[in-house]
Amino acid sequence: MQNYKMLIQYDGTKYSGWQSQEHTENTIQGKIQKVLERMVDAEVEVHGSGRTDAGAHAHGQVANVKLNTKMTENQILNYVNQYLPEDIAVTSVKKADSRFHSRLSAKRKTYVYRVWNSSAPNVFERKYVYMMPEKLDIEEMQKAAICLGGAHDFQAFCSRKMKKSAVRTVELIEIEKRGSEIRFKFTGDGFLYNMVRIMTGTLLEVGLGKRKPEDMMKILESKNREQAGVTLPPQGLTLWSVEY
Amino acid sequence: MQNYKMLIQYDGTKYSGWQSQEHTENTIQGKIQKVLERMVDAEVEVHGSGRTDAGAHAHGQVANVKLNTKMTENQILNYVNQYLPEDIAVTSVKKADSRFHSRLSAKRKTYVYRVWNSSAPNVFERKYVYMMPEKLDIEEMQKAAICLGGAHDFQAFCSRKMKKSAVRTVELIEIEKRGSEIRFKFTGDGFLYNMVRIMTGTLLEVGLGKRKPEDMMKILESKNREQAGVTLPPQGLTLWSVEY
Repeated sequence: MQNYKMLIQYDGTKYSGWQSQEHTENTIQGKIQKVLERMVDAEVEVHGSGRTDAGAHAHGQVANVKLNTKMTENQILNYVNQYLPEDIAVTSVKKADSRFHSRLSAKRKTYVYRVWNSSAPNVFERKYVYMMPEKLDIEEMQKAAICLGGAHDFQAFCSRKMKKSAVRTVELIEIEKRGSEIRFKFTGDGFLYNMVRIMTGTLLEVGLGKRKPEDMMKILESKNREQAGVTLPPQGLTLWSVEY
Repeated sequence: MQNYKMLIQYDGTKYSGWQSQEHTENTIQGKIQKVLERMVDAEVEVHGSGRTDAGAHAHGQVANVKLNTKMTENQILNYVNQYLPEDIAVTSVKKADSRFHSRLSAKRKTYVYRVWNSSAPNVFERKYVYMMPEKLDIEEMQKAAICLGGAHDFQAFCSRKMKKSAVRTVELIEIEKRGSEIRFKFTGDGFLYNMVRIMTGTLLEVGLGKRKPEDMMKILESKNREQAGVTLPPQGLTLWSVEY
């Protein structure tokens, strides 16, 4: 059995996420597994670097899979893309060390939350952005982002009560204006459930003037979900890349 | 009655084009007209700068419309976007001189045909690009593009027999590689039916080595549709901008 590392892109609009306990049918992992099982005519288990929410997207999800096949990396790539639905694509297949595990070996992940900040909607990117026409103070959001960066207990920014530690290190939060789009880019060693959507939601409330940058420390210290801002919808969220 | 100039964006995937003789229901013009008629409670005629094909898109279609309303330009913009489907958006509404006509006053149009040139499909742009994984010789295509530029009788690059003159001036053909994407950009004083899709199809055949750049003159001179290359599918085509 050879271990393979795969890079995967998907438009998650139609799916119940990368993986799901309830709807195994309609998951991205399930779709890829089904095609690979057909290819090698055996059961296959695809391991993702982490789950992504229903409706969220991936630009560079990473998965690993052990396969018994004589096909080359390129042949696997072409086979899989031929049978996958058009909103899922494998962009790279490479042989990997047998100890490589997409989740356990991951060192760093980057998520991007995209906000379309204009009174004129964006027709072409509508499924990948959250539309918010109100005026936003980018500098204030940047100040708040600095407070959120670093190692903290992020329980207040998590929709589920964590049994284990909620401490994560967010190395970098970048807020970048590109025309009418504002991109929130988060790089860290791990993210809790809904954490990026809640952090962006809280930063937008700072941008609207509803909260102050210095409130961030109080929210973190409270460890109370109710103190943070709204959970933004999943369509603006993209798992950008995973580093090893 | 005040004349207004509107800038319009649409994802044309679901529509029978900007305007259509047969299916007036499912056109972009029809959708916009319906919303404006509801707004002013009267019949309204929206004039586009030109038709776009069923399935083709627009980044900057221009239309003009005469309206009897006390609403401001911004109020019209917001009203229309509120009721338009999410794949059509008006990005600007400005008062215009009563003599302004989006089609008759147009001086120059730019179309872009987008080709995704990679064995890994593009999931996010899949509705806006034509996927072609084969290796393409960009320099050869650029040489051929130079031959097509200028004032010519473009009957060979038109799917319909023209009753009037088929002479048009294509001022600029740019072929730009952006990562895995190749963009074909055409600027000219007018384009015949399917002309951009046939020109790009012919250029791609040059890129594949099936034709030579110097064949372009022969094709033009033949005035025979059968001498030119295939008509590419509409989804790669976007009306980029119209100049006045």
